[in-house]
Amino acid sequence: MSEYISICEVGPRDGLQIAETRMTTEAKVHWIQAIAAAGVKEIEVGSFVPPRVIPQLSDTPEIVERCLKIPGLVVQALAPNLRGVQNAYNAGVHKISIPVSVSEGHSMANLNRMPAQSITMMQEIMDWLAAQPRKVPVVAGCSTAFGCSIDGVVPTAKTVALAKGLADAGVDQIMLADTVGYAHPAQIKEVVQATREAIGDTLYGLHLHDTCGLGIANALAGLEEGIRAFDACLAGLGGCPYAPGASGNIVTEDLVFMLESMGFATGIDLQKLIDARRLLHEGLPAEPMHGQVPKAGIPRTFKAAA
Amino acid sequence: MSEYISICEVGPRDGLQIAETRMTTEAKVHWIQAIAAAGVKEIEVGSFVPPRVIPQLSDTPEIVERCLKIPGLVVQALAPNLRGVQNAYNAGVHKISIPVSVSEGHSMANLNRMPAQSITMMQEIMDWLAAQPRKVPVVAGCSTAFGCSIDGVVPTAKTVALAKGLADAGVDQIMLADTVGYAHPAQIKEVVQATREAIGDTLYGLHLHDTCGLGIANALAGLEEGIRAFDACLAGLGGCPYAPGASGNIVTEDLVFMLESMGFATGIDLQKLIDARRLLHEGLPAEPMHGQVPKAGIPRTFKAAA
Repeated sequence: MSEYISICEVGPRDGLQIAETRMTTEAKVHWIQAIAAAGVKEIEVGSFVPPRVIPQLSDTPEIVERCLKIPGLVVQALAPNLRGVQNAYNAGVHKISIPVSVSEGHSMANLNRMPAQSITMMQEIMDWLAAQPRKVPVVAGCSTAFGCSIDGVVPTAKTVALAKGLADAGVDQIMLADTVGYAHPAQIKEVVQATREAIGDTLYGLHLHDTCGLGIANALAGLEEGIRAFDACLAGLGGCPYAPGASGNIVTEDLVFMLESMGFATGIDLQKLIDARRLLHEGLPAEPMHGQVPKAGIPRTFKAAA
Repeated sequence: MSEYISICEVGPRDGLQIAETRMTTEAKVHWIQAIAAAGVKEIEVGSFVPPRVIPQLSDTPEIVERCLKIPGLVVQALAPNLRGVQNAYNAGVHKISIPVSVSEGHSMANLNRMPAQSITMMQEIMDWLAAQPRKVPVVAGCSTAFGCSIDGVVPTAKTVALAKGLADAGVDQIMLADTVGYAHPAQIKEVVQATREAIGDTLYGLHLHDTCGLGIANALAGLEEGIRAFDACLAGLGGCPYAPGASGNIVTEDLVFMLESMGFATGIDLQKLIDARRLLHEGLPAEPMHGQVPKAGIPRTFKAAA
């Protein structure tokens, strides 16, 4: 049996939040259904932020409601604070992702709080969730864990310190995010090692961008360091509104191609995943679609992991 | 001192041979001069094939003559057979690359000979070169070493056997080429290990394509296996006329960004390298230019290796 890699498709949230045009709720649901039908087990379907902040995601409550009917799918949504977490919980999501930033500059610009305040906030959130009847796991996404377009170099110790603070606050899982795509493979290995030393298996996965062309190589570096969970975006959509130059999450199709080729099972049918691009394109015709495997076609030598 | 990685820019040969339009000799020379001025030490400047076969490269003799005046540059040219080698030698090139194919299908389609015949031919070439007064090293490029769009899977043993035959024929260096871009990182490691076991340090480097988005990850895998030489193409130009679907060498700019970020010295000034794209674009305005670092800009955290 092949080792399993968990892939969370974040296209419907991270991929859409800076899209130039808007995708209708109907189109989103069909697109998410197609991704789920390809075998993706976790999808971040939206964000519980005030509608005026990210209008593209203002239909998140309805999206969640409809996605909860997709059999077997772990429905994840982002929430930036306690109120968002409460709304996400009440909407019935299975898992909540909460963004924090390692660098002060990105944290202030993106979240309007300092990193230390994120830890205090996370403690309040975990306390509130612990008091609820339903257990909903929280994954904290540590933005700018490998560098920041505002603050520049982010020391490893700073990333580790924030991760440790979040783990101590009781967060279930932690993702390290290369929000602006500055990371390189040796750095990925160093930061993953140091973070794991501090928080063990609470370090869950990597959220990578392909801004500088190293996204998939960075995923490989993480894989070699024992990382078994990745965020990715169909067609490599996405970015960060407060991180200039940050463009494109790693492409889910190319990531799945690499992992399955190497003998890691993702549970995803690569051709069906590629077919889901059609629904994305129909819903957002103006958006450029990235990804090499979809353009070249799946190589005739490809064999999915058993 | 950082470890040195040798990068051979193959854009003027591999990048141009399937370009839709033609670049003038003048434009090519200026482009090559700009690449050399950025610090690239080896450039494959053309191919000694009959002009009717690849019209885009019919000015190779003149290109070689003018490039030999660039101080410190190793001028490399491709030659497909003994006659081509003789022409390249007489033109004064410093190094000759000779293509061979591991798979029968690609070998017949591209070179009109079987792989075993390539070894016989190489023996004749090495004998002829040994009898000349000037020592000109030969690098054999083993096409389809990781898979073939015609024959499908290429067993590792077949790649190793061809490499062994070529090394026994006295070839100075061997490159393993992922001509159609089917390779994945685990395969790169396996084939590099097996080949090195058979021919030691005669295994020189990797020639990778980004057809399926794994080009840079495959370079990382090779690097981790001790490979210290790579072919690459400015703006990721290139392909193979007889390998349908094969598109784009790995992007020199992104490769240099990764290597220097990781602390490996390439001797290349990344910004000057990116600036050389302007000359490529002026000479071939219709050709799409790939590469993420040039589009995003060099991250402010970037530090070249010392």
